[in-house]
Amino acid sequence: MKNLFAIIGGDQRQRFLAQLLRDDGHTVLTACLGGGDDVPLKEAAGAACVILPLPVSRDGVNLHTPLWEGRTAPLTALYPLFPGGSQVLLGGNIGAALRETFAMQGLTLLDYYDREEVQIANAVPTAEGAIAAAMSALNRTLHRMRCLVIGYGRIGRVLSHRLWGLGAQVTATARRLSDLAWIDAYGYASLRTDALSGHLSGFDLIFNTVPVPLLRRDLLTQLKPGCLIVDLASAPGGVEARAAEELSIPVLQAQGLPGRTAPATAAAAVRGAVYHILEERGEPI
Amino acid sequence: MKNLFAIIGGDQRQRFLAQLLRDDGHTVLTACLGGGDDVPLKEAAGAACVILPLPVSRDGVNLHTPLWEGRTAPLTALYPLFPGGSQVLLGGNIGAALRETFAMQGLTLLDYYDREEVQIANAVPTAEGAIAAAMSALNRTLHRMRCLVIGYGRIGRVLSHRLWGLGAQVTATARRLSDLAWIDAYGYASLRTDALSGHLSGFDLIFNTVPVPLLRRDLLTQLKPGCLIVDLASAPGGVEARAAEELSIPVLQAQGLPGRTAPATAAAAVRGAVYHILEERGEPI
Amino acid sequence: MKNLFAIIGGDQRQRFLAQLLRDDGHTVLTACLGGGDDVPLKEAAGAACVILPLPVSRDGVNLHTPLWEGRTAPLTALYPLFPGGSQVLLGGNIGAALRETFAMQGLTLLDYYDREEVQIANAVPTAEGAIAAAMSALNRTLHRMRCLVIGYGRIGRVLSHRLWGLGAQVTATARRLSDLAWIDAYGYASLRTDALSGHLSGFDLIFNTVPVPLLRRDLLTQLKPGCLIVDLASAPGGVEARAAEELSIPVLQAQGLPGRTAPATAAAAVRGAVYHILEERGEPI
Amino acid sequence: MKNLFAIIGGDQRQRFLAQLLRDDGHTVLTACLGGGDDVPLKEAAGAACVILPLPVSRDGVNLHTPLWEGRTAPLTALYPLFPGGSQVLLGGNIGAALRETFAMQGLTLLDYYDREEVQIANAVPTAEGAIAAAMSALNRTLHRMRCLVIGYGRIGRVLSHRLWGLGAQVTATARRLSDLAWIDAYGYASLRTDALSGHLSGFDLIFNTVPVPLLRRDLLTQLKPGCLIVDLASAPGGVEARAAEELSIPVLQAQGLPGRTAPATAAAAVRGAVYHILEERGEPI
Repeated sequence: MKNLFAIIGGDQRQRFLAQLLRDDGHTVLTACLGGGDDVPLKEAAGAACVILPLPVSRDGVNLHTPLWEGRTAPLTALYPLFPGGSQVLLGGNIGAALRETFAMQGLTLLDYYDREEVQIANAVPTAEGAIAAAMSALNRTLHRMRCLVIGYGRIGRVLSHRLWGLGAQVTATARRLSDLAWIDAYGYASLRTDALSGHLSGFDLIFNTVPVPLLRRDLLTQLKPGCLIVDLASAPGGVEARAAEELSIPVLQAQGLPGRTAPATAAAAVRGAVYHILEERGEPI
Repeated sequence: MKNLFAIIGGDQRQRFLAQLLRDDGHTVLTACLGGGDDVPLKEAAGAACVILPLPVSRDGVNLHTPLWEGRTAPLTALYPLFPGGSQVLLGGNIGAALRETFAMQGLTLLDYYDREEVQIANAVPTAEGAIAAAMSALNRTLHRMRCLVIGYGRIGRVLSHRLWGLGAQVTATARRLSDLAWIDAYGYASLRTDALSGHLSGFDLIFNTVPVPLLRRDLLTQLKPGCLIVDLASAPGGVEARAAEELSIPVLQAQGLPGRTAPATAAAAVRGAVYHILEERGEPI
Repeated sequence: MKNLFAIIGGDQRQRFLAQLLRDDGHTVLTACLGGGDDVPLKEAAGAACVILPLPVSRDGVNLHTPLWEGRTAPLTALYPLFPGGSQVLLGGNIGAALRETFAMQGLTLLDYYDREEVQIANAVPTAEGAIAAAMSALNRTLHRMRCLVIGYGRIGRVLSHRLWGLGAQVTATARRLSDLAWIDAYGYASLRTDALSGHLSGFDLIFNTVPVPLLRRDLLTQLKPGCLIVDLASAPGGVEARAAEELSIPVLQAQGLPGRTAPATAAAAVRGAVYHILEERGEPI
Repeated sequence: MKNLFAIIGGDQRQRFLAQLLRDDGHTVLTACLGGGDDVPLKEAAGAACVILPLPVSRDGVNLHTPLWEGRTAPLTALYPLFPGGSQVLLGGNIGAALRETFAMQGLTLLDYYDREEVQIANAVPTAEGAIAAAMSALNRTLHRMRCLVIGYGRIGRVLSHRLWGLGAQVTATARRLSDLAWIDAYGYASLRTDALSGHLSGFDLIFNTVPVPLLRRDLLTQLKPGCLIVDLASAPGGVEARAAEELSIPVLQAQGLPGRTAPATAAAAVRGAVYHILEERGEPI
């Protein structure tokens, strides 16, 4: 049995999501997405499964509707439109405050982004986006380049694997002994994240994935001239910006890559999560 | 500052361990190891750091001393020899019962094998050993072979990576959605471990890493003729032995590979764990 | 013993080449390169080893001097400046006509680009540049993408290897049975270059490396909607441009990538060739 | 239209070949293969396409029939049995003398083994066999092992690729500059085959693929203790046997691997060659 989905608001990723769900045979209404086939918000809000954007809201006031020709949809206007009941209400990267607000309206908002499998799936377009950004910024090949990947979480793992596949010389860092053992098992050189000092001068390219101000002035001064930093950590990132600027160290800001550089792949990750949520609730898909 | 270690009992792995520690500049006494340089048990037992075998005992009565020319060292004879105090007493794969027995003697026995980083490090020789065993048993190349890796834990991960590196077509299975996402991120095909039925007829080679009787008669009947199973799960393994025999399905038992096929590498993993334990206790290394 | 090199004319690649030679301890004069340290052409022309650009000339009249602030250096003005004798005179991608012209002046111009090892070395930045271009143009990841690499020469080999390392599903084509065997040995799917018809509808991304108008209208009509073509073949390329346009098939022109996207790496390849030429002539390096 | 093949003599590989041809729908007669379904030699000899063993003969007198229960088939008895005419007569690794003898009988014997694509296809089981042999002989993992591959021909290429895929640190050697460039392009370290002296002490494992007595006493003395040599070069191999023995250097003889360790894969390579030969002659397959 196929479902009636509604996708309300969002960016390019949500448009691809609508397409993917339709490709699977579902009926999909869209609203506030700015395409020619938007239906009225009220109609969309009644769907069996409503998918709000990622993030649901940037300012806490209006729905995130970057493609909706400059129009805004205040969250307060949204709440009364949802029938509730057996309706499944989903949003991405919701946050405690917004979840609470929805709860006060008697609505349960489930997060399709706050799931391990989506985060892992997103690590792939993130790694590719970071690699493409580095390739564009450099006048040398990644092949044979001495690369440091700081942090061996989801992004660090996938990124290290891809860099290795491109012929780079990969060193990855971690804090936990088990992650250091993984780094070794996959064949990279390893460093302890908390003991980088004195080991940085050999690298041509550094990817930071740790959302902690790790690359501070004392470490930045140890970099070889021309070393490029690609910062993947969410704002404010892991690089002391002022020091990097004063030391003329090039830093590429590379956050939110999946939605920007590979929205179709990012949409597929969201679709997977939506299906998993429905499955876990015993809904037919 | 270098340490005084004693290695008491054990197999080939412990002999390599002695060598590795000596290579690092430590003084190492050995006892019950059967080499020409064994010292009396009493002398060894007084070392600052005593390393008992892996496992400490097979029968719960005697120390595991397979290389000691048929001689036995009862555990009860050992206890009184340890001075205790600041001495560090280590053993591998100890088990609750033995740990308790040592505790009753006032001795704290720490496990160098029950550590995530050792298990990960051991996954590498395990994967290689399994691959070598499969290569020897097959009259075809792993290149292009359709391989199924059941379970995506430590061994499953490393094994999948190696098989892919050898040009095999890898499908891996997992129960958790996050592990299925990892399988996809590394580029393998995926199956749910609990839904293998109906998907097994395409494989030429199956590695099982899950210590659960998963490959039962109903699944075994679905295998294509000639499909080889390599069972890496600890005893009693994951294959219904009787059914496999009746169906003439070849099953390679491949347990305890690191110590058997790559004792030098396995010893290096133990050395790492020993150092980590000492480090965590604030001991100099 | 170190040498006196002169680099006369050229693009960014030649600037990096100057730097690389200096890093190796040689003395390097530059002229017509537009940097602040250019010496008079006459002075440079007297060096023991003179390196002309790649290509030496675009129009057959003037030296290729794109960085020389709009100034031109007619070839006819160059000839008299070379002392000849034991001087080594090198140029890139010279061509029969220009080689002849130099010969008529009594000058032997050797080609540092027309060497197998340079072409192979250049395949690496070419492959990376093609991948970066594809990544930028696509809204999906290369991971899991069904890619076709037409031609299994130098670029096809390196490109296939890199795409595989990024998790793409690679099919490569060749005419010769031996190359088809290589494709299989590296684990890719294979197609015969002259029998593509009927096999194209499954691909999301096609890289062409064959300098023959292979992708003609009849084949282009078989592509799935949205399939991207990256054409690496030298002009006029391998795609029937008009048909592609009429069929709304996106085609990325990707020629001359090494010099554009990775001039430092391309310069290293030239340096290698220069050294090899000197070595083969018995010159000290 | 399907063909009538006859496979006369040979080892396990030819038995698999018979099976593969049958799987493709052809009729296959066998003789002198020792299986229960052998037909009389005379009957088999009349097939449209007759496949003689690899090698056709070991002693120049009898057909190579190792599986034929100790019976022999003199070549002189064979000749009169072939009808000639449009019959296609194939053999493996024929050699000039035997080819000449057949020609004197008015028979054209074509070689299915002396083809580039078969040699490449055989490099895969050769590489796997060499890796399995090394794994069995070593007490350490190939992972992280410093491996030297001497020679970058067919076997050297495939072997380097597989070792890299297993996490080894690969250095490959070649004489030609173009091959050295390939080694670099695939990301391995490189050495010149004719300048190994002084560079050998770092390796734990050496694979020789060059059929020239390269590893002579002066080089062997430079190896680190415990370094293992796997000699893949055809007899007499590339290692000075007496020196190796005197220096206690372990040498694994690893010739003829495809037929021994992966006869099914080796048979598939022969089948490919047989088809190619028929195709080139315009025969239907």
